[in-house]
Amino acid sequence: MNRIEICDVGPRDGLQNEARTLDPGIRAQLCDRLAAAGVPRVEAVSFVHPKRVPQMAGAEEVMAALHRVEGVVYAGLVLNERGYDRAIAAGVDEIHYAFPATDTFCERNQGMTVADALGVGERIVGRAHDDGLPVSVTISVAFGCPFEGRVEPAKVFGLAETLTGFGPDELMLADTIGVGVPSQVRELVAGVAAFGLPVGCHFHNTRNTGYANAVAAVESGVALLDASSGGTGGCPFAPRATGNIATEDLVYLLHGMGLETGISLEAMLETAAWLSEQLGKELPGQTYKAGTFAPVAA
Amino acid sequence: MNRIEICDVGPRDGLQNEARTLDPGIRAQLCDRLAAAGVPRVEAVSFVHPKRVPQMAGAEEVMAALHRVEGVVYAGLVLNERGYDRAIAAGVDEIHYAFPATDTFCERNQGMTVADALGVGERIVGRAHDDGLPVSVTISVAFGCPFEGRVEPAKVFGLAETLTGFGPDELMLADTIGVGVPSQVRELVAGVAAFGLPVGCHFHNTRNTGYANAVAAVESGVALLDASSGGTGGCPFAPRATGNIATEDLVYLLHGMGLETGISLEAMLETAAWLSEQLGKELPGQTYKAGTFAPVAA
Repeated sequence: MNRIEICDVGPRDGLQNEARTLDPGIRAQLCDRLAAAGVPRVEAVSFVHPKRVPQMAGAEEVMAALHRVEGVVYAGLVLNERGYDRAIAAGVDEIHYAFPATDTFCERNQGMTVADALGVGERIVGRAHDDGLPVSVTISVAFGCPFEGRVEPAKVFGLAETLTGFGPDELMLADTIGVGVPSQVRELVAGVAAFGLPVGCHFHNTRNTGYANAVAAVESGVALLDASSGGTGGCPFAPRATGNIATEDLVYLLHGMGLETGISLEAMLETAAWLSEQLGKELPGQTYKAGTFAPVAA
Repeated sequence: MNRIEICDVGPRDGLQNEARTLDPGIRAQLCDRLAAAGVPRVEAVSFVHPKRVPQMAGAEEVMAALHRVEGVVYAGLVLNERGYDRAIAAGVDEIHYAFPATDTFCERNQGMTVADALGVGERIVGRAHDDGLPVSVTISVAFGCPFEGRVEPAKVFGLAETLTGFGPDELMLADTIGVGVPSQVRELVAGVAAFGLPVGCHFHNTRNTGYANAVAAVESGVALLDASSGGTGGCPFAPRATGNIATEDLVYLLHGMGLETGISLEAMLETAAWLSEQLGKELPGQTYKAGTFAPVAA
């Protein structure tokens, strides 16, 4: 396997945790820049209530304003069926549903237990099937929870087995608060992949383990990784923490290891610099500041 | 192998690339904090000419002011025999000699060719043997050179073979400008280890590959890693770039993977926060900002 698919979740997971809210038009421009750079999949919007996440208000406007590029998948995150209705109406290409692995986080984030969130997931996967849309399900805080601490792998495996029964197109394991390490990645990926669905990973670089985790995931057979241009985002539970692993730094790393992504590193460096200006701050991505280097692999 | 030895090079490689110069007394305090945290080896000083690297002026004062802890090795970097004389007079426990793998960088950094630098290395290793001191030799820019680009592994292997003949106690491979990726790490470590000496690695996180490289090194059998508390340092060739991988983030990662370092993570987080104050800036280390988390491995 020489090709890794990167889904840029910057327009959603990145921007929803930034202090400065960007207008839908700017967020659509970000999606356009990502598509132009060759990013095959973009998590463009979140259909959460704008009162809960003001940074994500105007998801429909974002979807209407972006210029679709043939072959690029524009996905929307939904947390419930009301969000699903909006996603369908806005014309997303793919549904992303996510819920936390722990009850405490699930209650705080989604106002329900994990058992109830599984039920919502079953209905959303079923509706996506009926509507002929691909659907991806993410298990959040799979590597650790800010409230409950370490999450037992057996818990994640149990959720993955149940979800596999619903028949989504893939399962994503998310280290939402950036506490995971490569040995955990290998254990969780191997255990979840055993149920038979494609497994992807979503890492935050909160404690500088994100890129090492990404390498461990790829070496465990994962062919789909989330990342955000510039490494935007943060963690509501750690105010000084940074966000997702940066798409352009991940591309630098993967290309250096001889893996393909189909993404132009140069275009992504320009996008990170542009996004830094839009947000009025330096972003955690490093390569856009340090510059590229003669390729380390042919 | 469950134990990884970390050498904190912050007092030397970290601080020599910081804009603010710290007094020898503060640098000695940093060494004391590292020793108290359980760091087994500290690169405390550099015996370069203070006109060339003002941040390293007063190496003798640092060595005189620090409070030696039994079992901790206080090393000094030397680039020539004059530096070696000073290191002996100052009472270091261990000699570190470093030279770049490429002629262009070697001329710029040390005013000589690689061939000449090998000759200096042979004499320094010989003198350390005569003086009964351990001596470590670092091949700098082994993963890439800002002037010559990619460094062929064969070049590094040739240098390593010659150096092995001199009989130092270990060889270090340094990614001085932070361009390496894990596949390179594995190739270089395997090739150099074949000559029979213990191999250590020195990574910079300039493009966010440093921690992934550290994991690759450990998995390749490397039991010695350099790091700097807080991730201090930088790169004269990339003004906005960050420095070494941060000791505390590396400790978080290694401990999470069930490896031992003998270092207190809590003490290192306090040291990073203290050093951030001394330097008057936020440091690249992440865990001291994000906070720890319930241990991910027992």
